[in-house]
Amino acid sequence: MTSERLTPSASQVPDPEDRTRLRVEEFRKRRPRLIDEVVTMAHGAGGKSSAALVDHVFVEAFRNPLLEQLGDGALLRLPSGERLVFSTDSFVVQPIDFPGGTIGDLAINGTVNDLAVSGAVPQWISVAFVLEEGFPIDRLRQLAADMRAAADAAGVQIVTGDTKVVPHGSADGLYITTAGVGVVPADRELSPAAVRPGDRLIVSGTIADHGMAVMLARGNLAIEADIESDTAPVNGLVEALLAAAPSTRWMRDATRGGLGTVCNELAQTVGLGVVIDEGLLPIDPTVLGCCDMLGIDPIYVANEGKFVAVVAAEEAEAAVAALRGLPGGAQAAVIGEVIAEPAGIVAMRTPFGGTRIVDMLVGDPLPRIC
Amino acid sequence: MTSERLTPSASQVPDPEDRTRLRVEEFRKRRPRLIDEVVTMAHGAGGKSSAALVDHVFVEAFRNPLLEQLGDGALLRLPSGERLVFSTDSFVVQPIDFPGGTIGDLAINGTVNDLAVSGAVPQWISVAFVLEEGFPIDRLRQLAADMRAAADAAGVQIVTGDTKVVPHGSADGLYITTAGVGVVPADRELSPAAVRPGDRLIVSGTIADHGMAVMLARGNLAIEADIESDTAPVNGLVEALLAAAPSTRWMRDATRGGLGTVCNELAQTVGLGVVIDEGLLPIDPTVLGCCDMLGIDPIYVANEGKFVAVVAAEEAEAAVAALRGLPGGAQAAVIGEVIAEPAGIVAMRTPFGGTRIVDMLVGDPLPRIC
Repeated sequence: MTSERLTPSASQVPDPEDRTRLRVEEFRKRRPRLIDEVVTMAHGAGGKSSAALVDHVFVEAFRNPLLEQLGDGALLRLPSGERLVFSTDSFVVQPIDFPGGTIGDLAINGTVNDLAVSGAVPQWISVAFVLEEGFPIDRLRQLAADMRAAADAAGVQIVTGDTKVVPHGSADGLYITTAGVGVVPADRELSPAAVRPGDRLIVSGTIADHGMAVMLARGNLAIEADIESDTAPVNGLVEALLAAAPSTRWMRDATRGGLGTVCNELAQTVGLGVVIDEGLLPIDPTVLGCCDMLGIDPIYVANEGKFVAVVAAEEAEAAVAALRGLPGGAQAAVIGEVIAEPAGIVAMRTPFGGTRIVDMLVGDPLPRIC
Repeated sequence: MTSERLTPSASQVPDPEDRTRLRVEEFRKRRPRLIDEVVTMAHGAGGKSSAALVDHVFVEAFRNPLLEQLGDGALLRLPSGERLVFSTDSFVVQPIDFPGGTIGDLAINGTVNDLAVSGAVPQWISVAFVLEEGFPIDRLRQLAADMRAAADAAGVQIVTGDTKVVPHGSADGLYITTAGVGVVPADRELSPAAVRPGDRLIVSGTIADHGMAVMLARGNLAIEADIESDTAPVNGLVEALLAAAPSTRWMRDATRGGLGTVCNELAQTVGLGVVIDEGLLPIDPTVLGCCDMLGIDPIYVANEGKFVAVVAAEEAEAAVAALRGLPGGAQAAVIGEVIAEPAGIVAMRTPFGGTRIVDMLVGDPLPRIC
């Protein structure tokens, strides 16, 4: 992991490589945090606190072999040998309408995408509503129409559901929980175990659009900008990528916690390092400008129609070309690679030749983004 | 449908049979209500308002062949020919602890039971939490343990999940949404189309325990009584019933809206009548006493570990015997039968020889029961 530097290192300051090594050692010494005594917003933000809550409370209680390989969904093997992926997500985004989407299409796309990046062809979706007393029926009708449109766009069917109502003031409008089932094609094998140094990281398009769109839609920042959520199904893009790059090892949609969190999950799961080239990250200039003004690193901002894939180096070019030919994939790019060391660490090469560690955040600067 | 009467009908008052006929005609004239402009608690209560909301908003928007056969779950057919049932439920019960159970085991048992009464062997469960900021982690740990224990008791695995956090005051503690997938054995066929006049209705045990237990646990009634929720998995009972009564036509767990609502759904789905013999309903005397004091008909009170089955007359005795031999089934009983006319109507024979119509309620006297 070397990079050109704009300024030569002077002998009186620690060598930059040494500095990086020191930082990595320091970083590794950190113990996983004990979780707090009460639930905090950070526990829902998809970062370290969320991971701690899931590990120490839920995985601990529910422990079983299927749960422990937990990615974006569970791989189920049927008596016939057929394989399914089963996934669920709750949606509590606020506001429920934002430029580019609503909680309705988000709830469909979110589960469709979890199934798709797990290697399944998404097919069936369940929807469960917790509605607040007083919520306008017309608004609900519109959200249902959004969900139907999203389901049609993704080629899935909404096949079952549930409705509960809670008193006014107890659900902030409504919460939607979707679950989904997809079928894994017989010849498809994705496995983090197949990831090796030299593999390339691909992102399917611009990052940070969804999180910034929702943040601005809240209207409590003194910023106006035309930013739309990227909420969209990625199953078409995933199929195109897998056709062009059949050795693809691993995929994940970069939702809560953004690209930075997903890359950390990758590095920790496979026990290898990940290096991202900051200059290669596709970001809309307006989104980048807003992130800069708010002091938020776009690498941690949620996406709702983008995924990260680890592909064999020799298939990377074909993979990017396949994505770029499709709607939603025009900005697809190779953004980095898998390296042997430092294992479990995500590093970012800056355009100035430096390297910084991309840690997983404890919480999220933008809560309730999905 | 005749019954002995305690008092002979006098010629100056309308003949009781005529009165019944008039009531049925009157009843049939009622149009389905237009749903309100905003969501009300009644929309979540499992009665007519719930049905109207689901039909006019969700089924209307999501329309597809799988959804239209909506029961407690969707029947999915895989390319291999294998059949699955997929189901979901949200749980918003208040309080989250009550005698006999918690929202945790309720959330597992609810979905297990929906799969079981749909003819599937429940196998895999997803859990999605909407947690309120400030909720105690120790409490969450205990609920997770309850869920694990319920999953173990039902023989299912919790395989995937999600956690979201909303600000204090926005989720009344926590809401849990589970979804589940079960496998339908190759030789199993349940179908409302197979229901015919003369078939018997069986209930797997005492009714109204859960609803009354939760109601009393709220502590705002001037009643103290030892009533425990019946929250339990019914999949073992369902398998025993199907083994003893292989011609079983239809099953449904009698949750929100109770036995009365389930029987109405049956009558409307099959286009036949249902007659229940009030004197045959298994009810715990304490539960009945509380219902009487509150003026609530136990036939509409929620159960969380009971189901109704329609079985062939000649298999009814064996079915009840099989259930009575198992935990949770000791009070199983034949409670009525399917009749040709009046079609779509549920009638109840009272112990005094009268007959009354058991309508589907608009709302529920006991909201947020699950």
